[in-house]
Amino acid sequence: MACLRKSVRQIENLYKYKEIVVKKCKGYTQIRLFTTTPLRNALSIKALKELTAAFNSANKDDSKVVFLSGSGSMFCSGLDLQCLRKHSIEERRKAARHLASTLRTFVDTLINFPKVIVVAVNGPAVGIGAAILPLCDIVYASDKAWFHFPYSSLGQTPEGCASLTIPEIMGQAWAGEMLYAGRKLTALEACSSGLVSHVFWPTSLMQEVTPRVQKIVEGSAKMLLTSKALIRSQLKPKLEYVNERECSSLEEIWVSPDFYRQAKIFLERGTADL
Amino acid sequence: MACLRKSVRQIENLYKYKEIVVKKCKGYTQIRLFTTTPLRNALSIKALKELTAAFNSANKDDSKVVFLSGSGSMFCSGLDLQCLRKHSIEERRKAARHLASTLRTFVDTLINFPKVIVVAVNGPAVGIGAAILPLCDIVYASDKAWFHFPYSSLGQTPEGCASLTIPEIMGQAWAGEMLYAGRKLTALEACSSGLVSHVFWPTSLMQEVTPRVQKIVEGSAKMLLTSKALIRSQLKPKLEYVNERECSSLEEIWVSPDFYRQAKIFLERGTADL
Amino acid sequence: MACLRKSVRQIENLYKYKEIVVKKCKGYTQIRLFTTTPLRNALSIKALKELTAAFNSANKDDSKVVFLSGSGSMFCSGLDLQCLRKHSIEERRKAARHLASTLRTFVDTLINFPKVIVVAVNGPAVGIGAAILPLCDIVYASDKAWFHFPYSSLGQTPEGCASLTIPEIMGQAWAGEMLYAGRKLTALEACSSGLVSHVFWPTSLMQEVTPRVQKIVEGSAKMLLTSKALIRSQLKPKLEYVNERECSSLEEIWVSPDFYRQAKIFLERGTADL
Repeated sequence: MACLRKSVRQIENLYKYKEIVVKKCKGYTQIRLFTTTPLRNALSIKALKELTAAFNSANKDDSKVVFLSGSGSMFCSGLDLQCLRKHSIEERRKAARHLASTLRTFVDTLINFPKVIVVAVNGPAVGIGAAILPLCDIVYASDKAWFHFPYSSLGQTPEGCASLTIPEIMGQAWAGEMLYAGRKLTALEACSSGLVSHVFWPTSLMQEVTPRVQKIVEGSAKMLLTSKALIRSQLKPKLEYVNERECSSLEEIWVSPDFYRQAKIFLERGTADL
Repeated sequence: MACLRKSVRQIENLYKYKEIVVKKCKGYTQIRLFTTTPLRNALSIKALKELTAAFNSANKDDSKVVFLSGSGSMFCSGLDLQCLRKHSIEERRKAARHLASTLRTFVDTLINFPKVIVVAVNGPAVGIGAAILPLCDIVYASDKAWFHFPYSSLGQTPEGCASLTIPEIMGQAWAGEMLYAGRKLTALEACSSGLVSHVFWPTSLMQEVTPRVQKIVEGSAKMLLTSKALIRSQLKPKLEYVNERECSSLEEIWVSPDFYRQAKIFLERGTADL
Repeated sequence: MACLRKSVRQIENLYKYKEIVVKKCKGYTQIRLFTTTPLRNALSIKALKELTAAFNSANKDDSKVVFLSGSGSMFCSGLDLQCLRKHSIEERRKAARHLASTLRTFVDTLINFPKVIVVAVNGPAVGIGAAILPLCDIVYASDKAWFHFPYSSLGQTPEGCASLTIPEIMGQAWAGEMLYAGRKLTALEACSSGLVSHVFWPTSLMQEVTPRVQKIVEGSAKMLLTSKALIRSQLKPKLEYVNERECSSLEEIWVSPDFYRQAKIFLERGTADL
C-alpha cells in the first residue's frame, strides 16, 4: 500500500484521533474504526466527533475516495449508549441532547459528503453501523458480516436515516421485519437485498477491496464528484429532513422510562448478544 | 394463543362481522378473511366495509399490532366484481361509483393506519389481495402462496396503490411484467423481489408467524408507533394521491363496454383460473 | 409473425431509416437497432434521431406496444463518441452540444412515451444501451446479455437518467459499484436486481418474447395507456429534470481535456473490450 506512513500528517493524526485510525494513501483516505469502548467499535460521542472531523478533513484534501472499515472481527456495534446511564433525569436529558446532536452532525456530514465513500464491512454491522451503509456509495462485505437493527429489543426508534433508506432499498416487507422485529440479515441476504454490493471471503476482504479502491481513484476527480452530485443531489434534502426527525425522536425516547428499562436489560447482556 | 375467546367484545364481533373473523388477542387484533362469496375471500363491498371497520376499531383499542390473514387455502382472490353485473348502464355506473368509493376508503384506512400490520399470506393473493401487501409492514407467506395482478385479462387498471408501490419495490421491469402482462410470482420470487419478508412451509405458517407477532407486541407501543410514523409519513401523501387517481380511473373503466366484455369472460371462467 | 411486410409504410420505412429497422406488426411496432457504425449498434447522432422519429411515429399510429431489440449478438454498445474526435476545441464544443442535445431529445421521448415498451436485450447492453432499460416497461434478456456502464474508464458521467433510475432499482450499493467502478452485471444478476424481468436462452429469446408481446396487445389500448399513465406519471418530472442535468454535465465533460485523453484510450481499444 502506497501509504505515506511517516508523513507529518500521519503523525499529526496519531495524536488527533483516539477512536479511529486515519491513513492518507495515494488518492484516498482510509478511516478505520478502532474504538477504546468496552464493546468493540461502539460509537461514543468521542468516536462520532472524530469520524466527523476525519471526513471533513478528507473533504478538504486531495483524496478522491474515503475508504471506511472496522477492525478486528467487528465492523461497528452501534451507538455507545453508556453515556445515557445517569442517575438524575436532568443529567440524562442533557446527555441525550448531546448524543442526539453529535449523531445528527455526523449523519449530516455523510449525507453531504461530496466524494465517493467505499466501505469494507469486515464483521457485524449493528444499529448505526448498518444504518450508515446506504449513505455510502459502494459496500463490500465479509461473508462473516451480518446486519442488525436491535431497535425492538432496545425500545429505540431508527437512526442514521434507516427509516427512509432501508425501506427504499429492500422494500417495506424486509425493512419492516428488520426494523420492527429485529431480523438479522446475513451478508448474502444483504447483498441480494441491495444493501451490500459484493461479498468476499473473510480472509481476503481487504486484499480484494484495496485494489478496487486504488482502481477507482485512477479515474478523474471531476468525473467522480460530478457523478456523485448527480446520483445523490435529489436525495439530500429528504435525508437531511429524515435525520432531523429521527434525532428529535431519539432525544425524546432516550429519556423515557420505557427506554431506560429496556435499554438497561439490553446493555447488561450487551456483549454476549453481539 | 392467549385469545379472550369468550369476552363480551368477542361475542359482539361475532354478530358484527359476516365476511371476516376478528379476534382480540393479548396486544394485537387478529383479522381473518372468511368471506361468504362464491369465490373464496373475494372482497365485496360488504367485506371492504367490514375490514375498514375492524381496522378502525383496532386503531382505537389497545392493540399494538394488527395480524391479517386469509382462510382455507386462499389469502384473497381480489375484488368481488359481481356487483358490477347490472343490466342498465345507469345501474352499472352507480355500482361502479359505490365500489370505487368503498375501495378508496379501505385503502386510505390502510395508508393511514398508525400501528404495525403483520400479514400471513396463506395462499394465492390476487389483485387487491396482492396490492395491499406493500401497505402492510411485515409480510410472511406460505410457500404455496402466489401473487398475481390479473389486470390484463380483466381489462382493468391497477388498484390499492399498486401502480406506485410495485414498481418502487421490484423495479419497473418486474412491475411491468406483472401489471401489463399478468406475470404471477411464486412465494420465493415475491420474497427475493422484496414484496414478502419470509417464506414458510404451508403447514407451519401460522405456528411460525403467531409467536413472531407475540414477540413484536412485547416491544413498547410508543417505539412501534413512532418508528412507523418515521418510516411511513413521507409516503402517505403520495399514496393518498395515487389511491385517489387509481379509484377515479377504475370508476371510469368499470363502466366501459370494453371492460364489461373482458371481465365477463374473466368472471365466467373465474374460479377455475384461480 | 403477422407483419405487413410489403405495405406502403414498410417500404417507406426502408427508405427512411438507415440505422434501425422498423416493422409495423399487428398491434405493435418492432424497432431493431441495426447500425452502420464500426462498433455494432453504437448510437450515433443519426441513430438517435432515427430512434426518436420511430418512437414518435409509433406514438401516433395504432400500435399499442413498441417492441425494441438489438441485432446480431449485440443489443447496444452505447453512444457513438467518434463524432467528438475533432481537432479544434471549437469544433469539439459544437459536436458535444449537438450530441448532448440529440441525446436529451431521445431520452425525453422515452420518458414521455405513453405506450408500453417491451425490450428484448439480445446481447451486451453498454452505457446508454443499459441506461434506457428502466425507461422501458418490460425487459426480457438473453442469458448471454450483460450490462455495463463504462463511465469510470471513459471518464464520463451517467446518461439516460441512470443516475436516478439505477440506484432506485438496485439500491445505492449495487448502483455505486456499477457507476463508479464499472462493475458488469450478468443477465441473472440484472434479473435479480430488478433491471430485467426475465432471462431466456439466447437461441430462443425472440421465440419467447414475440408471443408475449402479441399477448399484451390483445388487451385493451385504453387499459394499457391508463395503466402506464398511472405507473409513470409521478416519475416524469423527476426524470426530465435528471435528463436535463445529465446532458448539461455531459456537454461540459465531453470537451474537457481529461475526458479527451481517457476516451481516446478507451475508444482505441474499444471493440476488443466489448
